[in-house]
Amino acid sequence: MAIEKAVLGKNQAAADRLRDRYLRSKTLVINIMSSPGSGKTALLEKTLAQLGASFRTAVIVGDLATDNDARRLSGHGAEIVQVTTGGYCHLDAGMVTKAIDEIAGQDLDILIIENVGNLVCPSAFDLGEDLRIGLLSVTEGEDKPVKYPSLFSRVEAVVISKIDIADVVGWSRPDAIAALAVAAPRAKVFELSSRSGTGMDAWIAWISERIADKKAG
Amino acid sequence: MAIEKAVLGKNQAAADRLRDRYLRSKTLVINIMSSPGSGKTALLEKTLAQLGASFRTAVIVGDLATDNDARRLSGHGAEIVQVTTGGYCHLDAGMVTKAIDEIAGQDLDILIIENVGNLVCPSAFDLGEDLRIGLLSVTEGEDKPVKYPSLFSRVEAVVISKIDIADVVGWSRPDAIAALAVAAPRAKVFELSSRSGTGMDAWIAWISERIADKKAG
Repeated sequence: MAIEKAVLGKNQAAADRLRDRYLRSKTLVINIMSSPGSGKTALLEKTLAQLGASFRTAVIVGDLATDNDARRLSGHGAEIVQVTTGGYCHLDAGMVTKAIDEIAGQDLDILIIENVGNLVCPSAFDLGEDLRIGLLSVTEGEDKPVKYPSLFSRVEAVVISKIDIADVVGWSRPDAIAALAVAAPRAKVFELSSRSGTGMDAWIAWISERIADKKAG
Repeated sequence: MAIEKAVLGKNQAAADRLRDRYLRSKTLVINIMSSPGSGKTALLEKTLAQLGASFRTAVIVGDLATDNDARRLSGHGAEIVQVTTGGYCHLDAGMVTKAIDEIAGQDLDILIIENVGNLVCPSAFDLGEDLRIGLLSVTEGEDKPVKYPSLFSRVEAVVISKIDIADVVGWSRPDAIAALAVAAPRAKVFELSSRSGTGMDAWIAWISERIADKKAG
């Protein structure tokens, strides 16, 4: 990676402080990464609508520019903090630390970080998260996990999104599963559509279990 | 951008040498950039099939890993050189220089550079090209040009791809045109589907004219 060791060293120190903070508050932290337009925000809209009743939730949204995503995510009971990165193609632990300090309710069950849309840069930056999630929409092509191994090799789960249009775009599920078996062999795979709701229950159940696990310590 | 000035300065010197080389050979050079999965390779498959009969064509394909795209693009009469960037999220002028030296037929009418799938990193690196093209598929959302201004503000043309599924994904053409009017006000806009062929004629005609312009000097 074209990133200096000093930058990553500084990030790691800040990420370790965040991890310790999340451990003390027993907050589950998930870092969601994907290409631009894979459906991160659409998934979060539906996820917040379902988690909101049971869990104290906040979202940090990273983008190079605009607060479009924060506006889309508001109104579901979760506190939303938009971070604009000013040209950087990823969030770093320092940006997340500043954003957390803006969240009024600190006693959170879950903090969701929607990273900048990018299949490369975000993967190098630890944010102290418990879970890394990679999204892959059926429109992007089955081979993306092997073409972007730095991201997919480090995620705990892959969400295959937009499956309601899988047939329309000629998505080959076997080819995708084969690519994931190579690039992300240990990742749990969810196949869902935020629009139709197919597959959402399994995703919400998994997140809810992870929140409970974190609480139980 | 999180890129050192020294890196960009070295790139600029190499890009200037490339530009001079392309000027002497009267080769039109286009640099195609987009998110992963926007349809760069699908567009090039169809473009090569149509340009191949009239023009001496070569393609340099950049990816972090795999030679999938080079294999997809072979068999259309164009020479294809795959560059794997080993973790870098963009091509640079040095990589392109090395790749050009691998091309056997140097007397080219057009050199197409398919950059690494990324809406951020490639925009900072001049490759000595005549034209920068940004792809945006209808599946990605209408607001991507304003969310990724560093790329879209610097392109001569935007190709809106996959328009055969615009209705299925709920694409708002007016919203997209409004976003492009802000982010890329001077860019020519093509709307096409590589799969159905809709809109391909205007794209091919434009490229063919640009090749003729470069030849005429």
